[in-house]
Amino acid sequence: MAEQEVKLLGAGTSPFVHRVKVALELKGIPYEYIQEDVFNKSSLLLKYNPVFKKIPVLVHNQKPISESLVILEYIDETWKHNPMFPQDAHEKAMARFWAKFIDDKVTTAIRGVLTTEGVQQQENEKHAMEALQVIDGELKGKKFFGGESIGFVDIVMGGITLWLEALEEAAGVKIHDPEKYPSIDKWMQNFAQLPVIKESLPQRDILLQYFRKGRQLSLASAAGK
Amino acid sequence: MAEQEVKLLGAGTSPFVHRVKVALELKGIPYEYIQEDVFNKSSLLLKYNPVFKKIPVLVHNQKPISESLVILEYIDETWKHNPMFPQDAHEKAMARFWAKFIDDKVTTAIRGVLTTEGVQQQENEKHAMEALQVIDGELKGKKFFGGESIGFVDIVMGGITLWLEALEEAAGVKIHDPEKYPSIDKWMQNFAQLPVIKESLPQRDILLQYFRKGRQLSLASAAGK
Repeated sequence: MAEQEVKLLGAGTSPFVHRVKVALELKGIPYEYIQEDVFNKSSLLLKYNPVFKKIPVLVHNQKPISESLVILEYIDETWKHNPMFPQDAHEKAMARFWAKFIDDKVTTAIRGVLTTEGVQQQENEKHAMEALQVIDGELKGKKFFGGESIGFVDIVMGGITLWLEALEEAAGVKIHDPEKYPSIDKWMQNFAQLPVIKESLPQRDILLQYFRKGRQLSLASAAGK
Repeated sequence: MAEQEVKLLGAGTSPFVHRVKVALELKGIPYEYIQEDVFNKSSLLLKYNPVFKKIPVLVHNQKPISESLVILEYIDETWKHNPMFPQDAHEKAMARFWAKFIDDKVTTAIRGVLTTEGVQQQENEKHAMEALQVIDGELKGKKFFGGESIGFVDIVMGGITLWLEALEEAAGVKIHDPEKYPSIDKWMQNFAQLPVIKESLPQRDILLQYFRKGRQLSLASAAGK
């Protein structure tokens, strides 16, 4: 059916692509997956996302959409069954708030931990841990961010935490600590047990290799400045 | 009517607060405005936005919402008349994409221009100009981002451009150039002519004083590190 032509440009190493995959799986939307090489961008990717030149890109009936949070909102509005957001407008706003917090604070700091060293890395580590502390407070006593079942914020947070262990090894740091963040730890267990997540877990050795290469390139680029 | 108790914690110097004001005005929603001192945060602000401790905060029936883009989405979903977003789901996704681009690229770089000096400031200036070039391309041949009338992206971009001249003076740089960005320039004229914008223009001398103080504090803080 032409109306349902859905393609996803992605890579198994991207937690942002993972968000879109999980959303499509939860909605039961069939899609064609196009594997991209993040170190060697295809002309298709440059055509579909000329501004950011980044995956994920969702292409629905030839129309491309990029930025993972924008894609998730689009998916939820286009295919309305199994909604990712709460019905209540204030709760929905809070879900968007936490997704933004995760991307602005957690993701940025964790990326910084991978791509820097020395004092700069320590600074990023500190910011990552402060942000995780806030998230831990928010998750206290909850199974998932929105209550009893997986929703928008879980999908956004999910990739980050599933990716963290390999990133920590590549960067030579330890950020997550079950004793410091007991609620995040419990949430991670609940999240990883979901069938949709079990089926989409990234391969640790591929992630490790990817993060090592990314770290090496970032440090070389910073040294060359 | 208790259902419509709307308060906005803000300051006339914030382009992010300006977004929310314009959205409320366009919807015709009566609200109580609570002026905050950004250099001396009130207990009310800390209570309503304990995570970011920033304005704007919209309080609707005692429930606070922060982050300007999250607030705009909430307003548009709660009061459905005069919609800010296009009806088409793909066009709506593109509006969200451009709003994110403006905050991630334009706002971040322009803030960087104000708060740094020397090589770092030049780097931020370069990033700001690259981002404005992309926006100029997007606006080519258009009256507003979404077509013939003001919408979500215009509201998001609006505060930034109205604030720019005073920021440039405080930072000692020139970023906007009508010849380099003719489509942005034309858009700025269209935007500034709207009655809702004319009534909400910031006072140049207050902005200038605010930016000078902000720049001074940022440079002092960086020097003390």
